[in-house]
Amino acid sequence: MTASTQQLSLAPLHIPCLAVVGVGLIGGSLALALKAAGVVGEIVGIDLDAENLATAQRLGVIDRISGPEGVAAADVVCLTVPVQAMAAAAAGVIPHMRPGAVLTDGGSVKGAVLRELEPLLSSNIQFVPGHPIAGTECSGAEAAFATLYQGKRCILTPVTETDPTALDLVTRMWQAAGSEVVLMEVEKHDRILAAISHLPHMVAYSLVNAVSNYDRYEENILNYSAGGFRDFTRIASSDPVMWRDIAMTNRDALLEMIELFERFLGELKADIAQGDGERLQEFFLRSKSSRDAIL
Amino acid sequence: MTASTQQLSLAPLHIPCLAVVGVGLIGGSLALALKAAGVVGEIVGIDLDAENLATAQRLGVIDRISGPEGVAAADVVCLTVPVQAMAAAAAGVIPHMRPGAVLTDGGSVKGAVLRELEPLLSSNIQFVPGHPIAGTECSGAEAAFATLYQGKRCILTPVTETDPTALDLVTRMWQAAGSEVVLMEVEKHDRILAAISHLPHMVAYSLVNAVSNYDRYEENILNYSAGGFRDFTRIASSDPVMWRDIAMTNRDALLEMIELFERFLGELKADIAQGDGERLQEFFLRSKSSRDAIL
Repeated sequence: MTASTQQLSLAPLHIPCLAVVGVGLIGGSLALALKAAGVVGEIVGIDLDAENLATAQRLGVIDRISGPEGVAAADVVCLTVPVQAMAAAAAGVIPHMRPGAVLTDGGSVKGAVLRELEPLLSSNIQFVPGHPIAGTECSGAEAAFATLYQGKRCILTPVTETDPTALDLVTRMWQAAGSEVVLMEVEKHDRILAAISHLPHMVAYSLVNAVSNYDRYEENILNYSAGGFRDFTRIASSDPVMWRDIAMTNRDALLEMIELFERFLGELKADIAQGDGERLQEFFLRSKSSRDAIL
Repeated sequence: MTASTQQLSLAPLHIPCLAVVGVGLIGGSLALALKAAGVVGEIVGIDLDAENLATAQRLGVIDRISGPEGVAAADVVCLTVPVQAMAAAAAGVIPHMRPGAVLTDGGSVKGAVLRELEPLLSSNIQFVPGHPIAGTECSGAEAAFATLYQGKRCILTPVTETDPTALDLVTRMWQAAGSEVVLMEVEKHDRILAAISHLPHMVAYSLVNAVSNYDRYEENILNYSAGGFRDFTRIASSDPVMWRDIAMTNRDALLEMIELFERFLGELKADIAQGDGERLQEFFLRSKSSRDAIL
């Protein structure tokens, strides 16, 4: 089911006041994208890091700095903090939200966010769980840019309690930011993201640590790395706290994927050890065909 | 030891005739770079693939198509074929080389190339083993471009028999192509490349195969991949034959690196399974610090 089947509202989107809780790469880029699209009035920024908030205001990412009570003015409140900080952030702002306001999030693991937020929600708050599939290896307000979501997918994972009007509003918000919105079940989201995003990050982090710890020579062999290695390991520069939280909260799906990956690497290792050229070439060719198909 | 200590010749470099044996990304880009630098006269192209040769000539990568006997005119003969094709290529051209001509190569594994070529060499042929640390995931003459080597390292691995004048010539040839030339021992080259290049390719190929084979859902989950996954797996589109040969000929160093990588991934997996947030964050932070240092 794509969101194009969800045309509840045909009026132009306008969000008089948006509160962004956690003004980093994800929340800041959403703010900039919605401003650029002209669909938002005032943007209130809320963040535990005062210096980051000041940067966000200086760069025009947000209009106004506030504490949690600032969400009282907001029509839409967007939680864009690391997954394990979601519950505390939600607990801080929900009591200040006005009845009927929409709460959404950008958390990379949806099952954990839903479990943590469910006890905090009331029927006055319309929650729509979301996850924009976009990012860079940079973090903080200064990493935000208006075109981050252009042409990228945003997955929303509504549950039976999700209000259709709120879902429609959040859908149109992400579309205004440039995204293609896709609706998906929570568990499927978490498993697919474990495969295409969480696993590659774990592999990249492990690879950089392994190569950095190769101590046969006195010099730092990373200095010999060329473009391939740099592209390959770019995601190992991603925010450690964000990825700690993802690894902690999507554990089962991630462990399943790591084990699947280990099986394939083990198969390749056996072919290398046996010097089986035919199987090696076939292994590489299969991979190349899959990879070329998503170019 | 860097090549700057090797200033045997101060006369401007001029190679009247260069023969490129294997006109793909590596050999073709060398031809284009040397032409652009104005240091080469005629370039003769030799390749088993007639269609590729025709493309190379049409694109101006080479001046003339020839069989193996075409190396008779060459001052420098450069073997740029997959590692396991080196011996056959060398055996085909060496009998036609004129006495005193320089033979060099661009093979990714130096130990294997040296072992295979040694019995074929005579005192009339000056062999200089080399490896430009550059490439893209594309292959064939049409993938070649003149700036591939700009600012990249080229490692030469001279042995005791290597003629200093020939080493000087090949050094200056790669410098003219835009490379920084580094001299290194054969075994060290093969181990360092196993770490920074061969291991990442094995990991990328395995990752793409693992994710492609994740069959919990009917759709191709690779369609959900975003920029991170695409960058991360770009090298899995590399030439399967080239990588089969590398995996076959640098086996011991590569198996050692795969096992080192498996240990780090295993450590990470254990931390995820135990939900040890402190260790996870520390693991990711260590990796990020190493990766940021080579940006």
